[in-house]
Order: sequence, then C-alpha cells, then structure tokens
Amino acid sequence: MEVREALYTTRAMRRMKPDRIPMDVQARVLDAAIRAPSASNTQDWRFVLVDDPDLMRTLGDLVRQGEQRSKETLYAERVAAAALAPDEPANAAFLRMLSSVWYLVDHFAEVPLLLAAFVREGVASDASIYPAMWSAQLAARAEGVGSVMTRVLDVYFHDATCEILVVPLEEHWRMSGAVVMGYPTGRWGVAPRRRVHEVAFRNTWGAPLGFEVAEPLWPERRVESS
Amino acid sequence: MEVREALYTTRAMRRMKPDRIPMDVQARVLDAAIRAPSASNTQDWRFVLVDDPDLMRTLGDLVRQGEQRSKETLYAERVAAAALAPDEPANAAFLRMLSSVWYLVDHFAEVPLLLAAFVREGVASDASIYPAMWSAQLAARAEGVGSVMTRVLDVYFHDATCEILVVPLEEHWRMSGAVVMGYPTGRWGVAPRRRVHEVAFRNTWGAPLGFEVAEPLWPERRVESS
Repeated sequence: MEVREALYTTRAMRRMKPDRIPMDVQARVLDAAIRAPSASNTQDWRFVLVDDPDLMRTLGDLVRQGEQRSKETLYAERVAAAALAPDEPANAAFLRMLSSVWYLVDHFAEVPLLLAAFVREGVASDASIYPAMWSAQLAARAEGVGSVMTRVLDVYFHDATCEILVVPLEEHWRMSGAVVMGYPTGRWGVAPRRRVHEVAFRNTWGAPLGFEVAEPLWPERRVESS
Repeated sequence: MEVREALYTTRAMRRMKPDRIPMDVQARVLDAAIRAPSASNTQDWRFVLVDDPDLMRTLGDLVRQGEQRSKETLYAERVAAAALAPDEPANAAFLRMLSSVWYLVDHFAEVPLLLAAFVREGVASDASIYPAMWSAQLAARAEGVGSVMTRVLDVYFHDATCEILVVPLEEHWRMSGAVVMGYPTGRWGVAPRRRVHEVAFRNTWGAPLGFEVAEPLWPERRVESS
C-alpha cells in the first residue's frame, strides 16, 4: 500500500470482527512500530499484546466505566448540545462517533487484539511513544486491520490496568494508551477534517499559510497558491 | 512509496541541504498530517510553518542553548560514559547522534523549513498531536524530504518560542515540539532498534510474545514462531 493512502485512510475503526489476527501479521505490525523515533533513540518503550478473552473482558469492564465517565464529564456539553439539535451536522457526526464508541464497549470482549503501550517517565516521553503507536496503526492498515486508540484505561484506571497487566510501576513505566485492533466490518475511507489553511500559518500565528487546500490531496489533486 | 518502506526508513535526518522545499510538497506534507487521529476527532491543533531566515536564526539561538542544557543535564551521564569508552558500540552510536545534533545546531539558520505544532491543553492532548507530527515526517519521507523532531524549544523555552511565533497562550495552546525538514545530505536506511521480542510481551508483562523477529521484517523476511 502506498504511504499516502495509509496516512489518509487510517481512520478510527471501532466496529470489528472477532476473527483472530495471524501471528505473522502481528509481527509485521509490531516490528514496524518499533522503527518509530524516540527521544535520542532511547527506545524506553514496552508493549503488551493482549488476546486473552478473560483479560479482554476484565479490561472491557474498565473501558465501559471510563467511557461512561467521559460521557458525563468531558463530553457532557456536546452530549447536551446534540440532544437539542441532533441533525446539526457537527452534532450528528458526534453522535455517530459516540454510537461507534458504545458499539466497541459492548463488543470489547470479542476484540481480537489490544496493544497496550508503555514509556518510561521522562522528558519528552510523550513524543517517544505516540509515533510508535501510530506506526502500529498505519502498519495494521496496510494489512487490512482496523484500529483505534483508547485512552480511558490509562486516563481513568492507570494503576488498576497496570496491575492487571502486571506492569512493574516501581521501574517508572507509565501506560500511554491502548490500540485495539481487528478486521473492520465497515469500509476504509478518508475521514473529514478541517482544511489545512484553517489550522496552519506561515512564520507567525494567524499569518497566511501561502497555499490553500480545498479538497484532500489524496488521490492526486492540484494545490492552489494563495 | 510503500507504507512499510516509509515506516522503516524515516530515521532522524539532521544533516540537510539549504534547498527550499516547494510549496506543493509542503502542502502534501501538511495535508497528510491533518488526516491523523485526535481525541474524539476534536482536531484542536495548529501548525506554524517557519521559513523566514531571521526567525530561523532567532530560534536557532534557543535551540543551541537548549541542546547545551540537555548535554549538561539529561545527557551528562552518557556524555561522561562515552568520554571514558568512546569505542564501545552504544557510546559510539551516542556520540554519532550527538555529533549530528550539533551539526544541526550549527546549521540551524539554513534549515529550509520548521513545522511547529500546537495543541489545546486537555485530556489526551499528547495523543492528539504526535501522530500528526509523525505523519508529517512520513509524508515528507515519501517526498524525499528528511526530518527530525526537536523538543528543546518547547521543553526549555516554551513561552519564549511562543512569543516569537505570536502564539495566543491565553487560548490555552501549548507547543508540543517542532519538526525540522530539508533534503538530506545522507542516505536513507533502516535505523537500528532493539528487537520486538525484547520490548514486547503477551497478555502480561514479561510473558513471551509468541514470536521472535531476528532481523527487520522489511524488506520481506520470515517470522520465527517461539
């Protein structure tokens, strides 16, 4: 698969089949992930691949509690706005996302693979783990495997999750999130995004970028200079 | 370019030519970057592309001070160890990295493009910006453009850098790092990494992964099951 197709079409996939992911596919995904950069190449990362159904059920209970908490706190305003005007496009998109989140919650025990990622606490440790996790998602995409990152386990239940996975916290490891993976039931496509010239500037904040991109540049399209 | 070639060969490139990066290449890089995921797709990100030589000189002074500080603090132990045994392989690799860091410091004003990235403070904001930055580096790789992320500006000089780039900090933006980009003077290749089965486990920390990967799986190689 061409790299730009992977970058454009690796959208969050939360509806997945229970089919197992073969070991050689898992190996290619993980081996690609560890090629990612880390601060001064320290590679102070560890990964736990979870495929045990009992563990997935236990983690799924925490994910459900976490998503419930997100809905009541982080998302409370958007949930309320969407209830008032469910057909407004931004609200409709939010409700579709929420519905897919809850589909995943309800089917968490059947998710075939979870990749939990850990990084040693330190300067720039965040920049030393998310590229590897995103590489895992891109490499999975190239294998036809869908994925989505979830943060509810580490944000709301960090120590409980680490206890379940037997993480030696005394060695200063921190869980950075988890990527769930499986063969998607839906189709791949380019997810909608705000356009580049609305979120990027040239030299100083607010100054024109120098080009505009009206439509996604993959597949090939012309760039308008501005 | 095939996605796995990009994932395996996008290594840190710190020696780059001063040649400008054409606007259409910049557009493709940035348009690919904003396809990355962010927490519940909020896209609370902004990017500033810096190509003004005066600004690059000003930022370069801060980068120099930051790298000096890193050398005296973060890296002090490794610098001391490398001075005692410079030929020991890990030390030699560290010294090569340090040498390329200082090459970049000395040539910072001639770097053709810097991509500064910002994210709104919030839950999981780290996971909402580093995938986009890494996508920019992967998309740049596909265009033959080398890159490396630097954190010294935001780690040591966050507010000063934001003042230079006129970032409205009162809106709760935080700089997450900067990617410098340019056509590399050196060659692309697969960077050495610890092997997957040394940094990954199955189901619980420390348990065997289920496969071993002796050599990078790109180009194609066989996976040994264990």
